Amino acid sequence: MSRTLYFDNAATTYPKPTDVYNAMNDFYMNNGVNVGRGQYSLASKASALVNETRELIYKLFNCPANKKVVFTSSATEAINIILQGLPWQGEENVYITHFEHNGVLRCLNHLREVHNIDLSNENYLEVDRDTLCYDLEEIQNQFNRKKPNVVIINHASNVCGLVAPIEEISRLAKKYGATVIVDCAQTAGLLNIDLRKIMADYVIFAGHKTIYGPFGIAGFIIDEKSQLKPLLYGGTGIDSANLDMPTTIPERFEVGSPNIQAIAGLNAALKWLFSTGVNNIYEKEREMTNELISVLKEFEVNMYLPSDEANHIGIVSCTFKDLPTDGIGNFLNQHNVAVRTGLHCAPDAHRFLGTYPGGTVRFSLSYFNTNDQLTLLKEIIRDIYLY
Amino acid sequence: MSRTLYFDNAATTYPKPTDVYNAMNDFYMNNGVNVGRGQYSLASKASALVNETRELIYKLFNCPANKKVVFTSSATEAINIILQGLPWQGEENVYITHFEHNGVLRCLNHLREVHNIDLSNENYLEVDRDTLCYDLEEIQNQFNRKKPNVVIINHASNVCGLVAPIEEISRLAKKYGATVIVDCAQTAGLLNIDLRKIMADYVIFAGHKTIYGPFGIAGFIIDEKSQLKPLLYGGTGIDSANLDMPTTIPERFEVGSPNIQAIAGLNAALKWLFSTGVNNIYEKEREMTNELISVLKEFEVNMYLPSDEANHIGIVSCTFKDLPTDGIGNFLNQHNVAVRTGLHCAPDAHRFLGTYPGGTVRFSLSYFNTNDQLTLLKEIIRDIYLY
Repeated sequence: MSRTLYFDNAATTYPKPTDVYNAMNDFYMNNGVNVGRGQYSLASKASALVNETRELIYKLFNCPANKKVVFTSSATEAINIILQGLPWQGEENVYITHFEHNGVLRCLNHLREVHNIDLSNENYLEVDRDTLCYDLEEIQNQFNRKKPNVVIINHASNVCGLVAPIEEISRLAKKYGATVIVDCAQTAGLLNIDLRKIMADYVIFAGHKTIYGPFGIAGFIIDEKSQLKPLLYGGTGIDSANLDMPTTIPERFEVGSPNIQAIAGLNAALKWLFSTGVNNIYEKEREMTNELISVLKEFEVNMYLPSDEANHIGIVSCTFKDLPTDGIGNFLNQHNVAVRTGLHCAPDAHRFLGTYPGGTVRFSLSYFNTNDQLTLLKEIIRDIYLY
Repeated sequence: MSRTLYFDNAATTYPKPTDVYNAMNDFYMNNGVNVGRGQYSLASKASALVNETRELIYKLFNCPANKKVVFTSSATEAINIILQGLPWQGEENVYITHFEHNGVLRCLNHLREVHNIDLSNENYLEVDRDTLCYDLEEIQNQFNRKKPNVVIINHASNVCGLVAPIEEISRLAKKYGATVIVDCAQTAGLLNIDLRKIMADYVIFAGHKTIYGPFGIAGFIIDEKSQLKPLLYGGTGIDSANLDMPTTIPERFEVGSPNIQAIAGLNAALKWLFSTGVNNIYEKEREMTNELISVLKEFEVNMYLPSDEANHIGIVSCTFKDLPTDGIGNFLNQHNVAVRTGLHCAPDAHRFLGTYPGGTVRFSLSYFNTNDQLTLLKEIIRDIYLY
């Protein structure tokens, strides 16, 4: 491990649990073959690993029996498959949060050009600017004024860590028959997400963030009866003579060779999550987050935090009084403090927080951050004000 | 390593050079962060690795200065980005080979439905059925009779190893101003592919096959002035405030977090290729292929081989006299011989070879196969005829 003080876990968690590195390396060295119809023993083991990993994802989200897991190479790919695959007729009302990532925003911008979907200013789910709390009453009013067709909910902001009440919003949206999409890129594995309670049609997860798995594997959860159109066409290892994509899910959406090494890492990560305990991981990260906030409070910084700690995960964005964000970022980076400054691929969030276009300095934590790191961070920030 | 006799290298090469496993594991453990604008030292190292790997790909294909490398998560994704991104007007004449993989075939089938592209029987580039040799004179006649708009050339068949004369076909196609796409999934790193001689607009490669890299990384080579439309929309780490995709290449097509671990593996694989020598790898595989053919000749099998060995890579498809393909496959798999039977996601190839719908038993080799393995294979096949 390096001596970097790594506070860029919202970009990707690092380090991973040791088991994750080992599982990837061992499986790839000993079993690095192509899943699919080759029924020699190595291929069967690879297929079994993929199936077991799907089961672990079902367990993580407490999926009811009608749900299927589709693996993709990234959450961005998952978002594109879902958003581009919906049966758009034109002029649908699409509600989003202020905190969508460019994966969602750029995809919607494309759909606006193609299908003229409605993404007006009044289509942002209402959040109180002072408390950073979703306003469910006003959201109901929004839906009443303008019926939602599609509702996309960023579960937790990669900029400020604000958590959306997905259970309540999805229930409201479903009253109007809307298609509900929840982006759990920053929360899967960190928060309890119970798909027996959350009325979501599509739930997106990233392997390499709060699940503590590797790059190269992500996915979404979909109803087995979904009529989503494929975005990517290609071989799936089944029904090769058919030039149409299979109608079965997940095969319909999983083209090309599965990334068995990444799946081995995801598998180990999920087992680590369950053995460590999702709640324990959350509590540890919460503790570190409170400590981080205490450290930052000692300096003249503005932090963009929800007033209710229960709606917040370990991501703290701030600006330093009288000092430019990128200057702070450069100073910290030069002192081997890994933070990310700017807009974090989420320009709307910064517009909402009032930090556009300069952005913020973002500190983001994981289970593996320590008090010692925060003590060192405090000393380094103190130096900023000395110079 | 397992004791499996691995002859499924056309699905994915296995094992990889030791350096590839080590590089992936070391880089991911010590530097497994997100590339992009985070300019802390680990992120800079990750960015440098990506840039160096692009340079190695330029070198592999002897790219002229106007070419760019776009990384994707799979060759199938690359094919989809290219084929779906072309400026289709409708009713274009698309020429393909008899040996396209379902990545191409299913994508084209979708485009036929959307844009009514012409993919008639006369749009298959002519191959002599007896010699399995591309007929350049007849291909010129085909183009004369019906002007090509798009020509897609499978560089080497994943079913029978037939190599297409891409330099000559692309030159013919360019006389008619066609867009030329070459699928090098089975050849990049194995055959010399010189993009200063081959007039191709798009060249696709897979990391995990003949380049000896891992799953999760592939890509294509594109002209820096290409007007290809994006297929996937999302964050690229640059110009975050812009809801349109960047106009610069490769950023326009590379969305989401780069798979730095896979790129570390690809980097090590490319360095291994150059230090071992592409020609040496080819020669070793050729030698093993001739040995494999000798082994199979001892039994009553039909092999589907080009008459000119120079047009053939280490993939041998065969059928066993009076014995069903899947039965042979099962027998071999049970004896831990890794082969793949059936249609290999390339139904047209089997129609052309006359092996549809039963398919073939496919043996595919790599640099790491040995004479001892072939000796063992001979003994196991002998058992088939004893039982």
